[in-house]
Amino acid sequence: MTEKIVNRLALIGIGLIGSSIAHAVRKKGIAGEIAVQTRRAETLERARELNLGDTYTTDPAEAADGADLVIACVPVGASGAVAEAFGPALKPGAIVSDVGSVKGSVIAQMAPHLPGGVHFVPAHPIAGTEYSGPDAGFAELFENRWCLLTPPDGTDPAAIETVERFWRGCGAMTEVMAADHHDMVLAITSHLPHLIAYNIVGTASHLEDVLAAQVIKFSASGFRDFTRIAASDPTMWRDVFLHNRDAVLETLAMFTEDLTALQRAIRYGDGDLLFKRFTETRAIRRGIIEIGQDTEAPDFGRSPHARAPQDGDTLGDG
Amino acid sequence: MTEKIVNRLALIGIGLIGSSIAHAVRKKGIAGEIAVQTRRAETLERARELNLGDTYTTDPAEAADGADLVIACVPVGASGAVAEAFGPALKPGAIVSDVGSVKGSVIAQMAPHLPGGVHFVPAHPIAGTEYSGPDAGFAELFENRWCLLTPPDGTDPAAIETVERFWRGCGAMTEVMAADHHDMVLAITSHLPHLIAYNIVGTASHLEDVLAAQVIKFSASGFRDFTRIAASDPTMWRDVFLHNRDAVLETLAMFTEDLTALQRAIRYGDGDLLFKRFTETRAIRRGIIEIGQDTEAPDFGRSPHARAPQDGDTLGDG
Repeated sequence: MTEKIVNRLALIGIGLIGSSIAHAVRKKGIAGEIAVQTRRAETLERARELNLGDTYTTDPAEAADGADLVIACVPVGASGAVAEAFGPALKPGAIVSDVGSVKGSVIAQMAPHLPGGVHFVPAHPIAGTEYSGPDAGFAELFENRWCLLTPPDGTDPAAIETVERFWRGCGAMTEVMAADHHDMVLAITSHLPHLIAYNIVGTASHLEDVLAAQVIKFSASGFRDFTRIAASDPTMWRDVFLHNRDAVLETLAMFTEDLTALQRAIRYGDGDLLFKRFTETRAIRRGIIEIGQDTEAPDFGRSPHARAPQDGDTLGDG
Repeated sequence: MTEKIVNRLALIGIGLIGSSIAHAVRKKGIAGEIAVQTRRAETLERARELNLGDTYTTDPAEAADGADLVIACVPVGASGAVAEAFGPALKPGAIVSDVGSVKGSVIAQMAPHLPGGVHFVPAHPIAGTEYSGPDAGFAELFENRWCLLTPPDGTDPAAIETVERFWRGCGAMTEVMAADHHDMVLAITSHLPHLIAYNIVGTASHLEDVLAAQVIKFSASGFRDFTRIAASDPTMWRDVFLHNRDAVLETLAMFTEDLTALQRAIRYGDGDLLFKRFTETRAIRRGIIEIGQDTEAPDFGRSPHARAPQDGDTLGDG
């Protein structure tokens, strides 16, 4: 028997993350009931067919009414609007959280709409796939993944503890950090990589037809991995870039400076600089393997053999 | 019983690709004997321990002597030197090939050293992992992967046919194209993605220590996939960029123009442009899934569920 962590849970939005929370909560039995809200009637109907909740509504206030924990699972840009809609319905002592990939902007958007006596514990589960919508969710999405909490100073420790227990109940590991720190770390680890992936795939999509067809045909040489990242939800990512603007522009400037140096080395044949830069990057990969954040299997296990890296004198395609 | 395609095969270089050819050839029985050559004595000894060939030498000419098919499996920048070394030892009617990721430069480097009566059929198996060296090879590396052949005009069709049969025997699919076309297609599908991946991981490696540690810790949000690509062999990739300079600089210029437009959209809050660009990229991903060049499983099957993409109103992290 798993202990219930909250009695009534309200999910505001039921896409990949919202539906995955619903699956995980049902599987682990950590909430008494789930109120599902989403804006579009057809999405709500699909959530009902998938049996993701106990009650269903298109009205955020109706879902939040009487809830112990309300989680906004909407694109970052919609955070303020949903908080404005459900804020007045919150009961004293309720906890409000979210799942957005940007924390500073979400706090600025949501906090003004939350009444006194309500606890606000913003959170970001670092988990997902390139798919979206209520059909995309599954109970195991958060297992062994991080969920970062960014409660404003002065937040009730008991409320933070409840949200941490909730996410651990869903299988995640939790860590508390400041919102601005979160936004810089994620700009580098997530937002910039997505921007770059969208951009390189976009560049390829402008090619003349024959070349574009061959890019698709021979994509296994590296490009393919970028196309997966660039297949992520456009609405979510538009909002991420608009709402984490300063950190993204700062990391993008660093990226561009470094890329210009590589470009110059290619133009003038500076092989020593290229070799040095291509060697430095291995330490970070080793770090990621060592802390267990990725598999050592080559090519993500698409290939059947796993091997330790070798200092060889010959070549390996990526 | 598989038919032998060549009697004596010489592998010049025995890293990831050379050793994978050796494994595949032995498994499929498509060569009578394998002569293994590599420059470093310790690598040669390792190849012998792994039983990758029938004879072993550090001398390219000795390996090529009497061979029906000689394949240079060395970094692109070493192509000319090995051809110069083994050229005089080639018997009339021998076929010379290679596995380099750049074809124009390899042809320019190798062709002058090949005597008359020898057939030159440059090839590029688009297969690999992020690991290198003789321990990294395995027989299945080329299965269902493309091998592109770029024979110069006037090459004996029978020699091209032999190299195609050899690679199909190793499990690959083959296609013949012009060297300059190959180099542009690969600049987009492989060389630019590797440069970008090296660059973004390099940018992260310059961060101050606390931030760098957190980038590693929370890498699963997108960055992780880039670190795998950026763990590829530095020598190989230095040579690729130096030897496919013009095509790489051209595609890099296109990439930078497009990235600058995205950067401007972020700075001035042009969400419509971001949404439009992030949507266009999905068509290319669909093309890759449709022709079977990647799995539809989300997150490369790291996650246990495979789902069709949905047009949802909610969010999914990458």
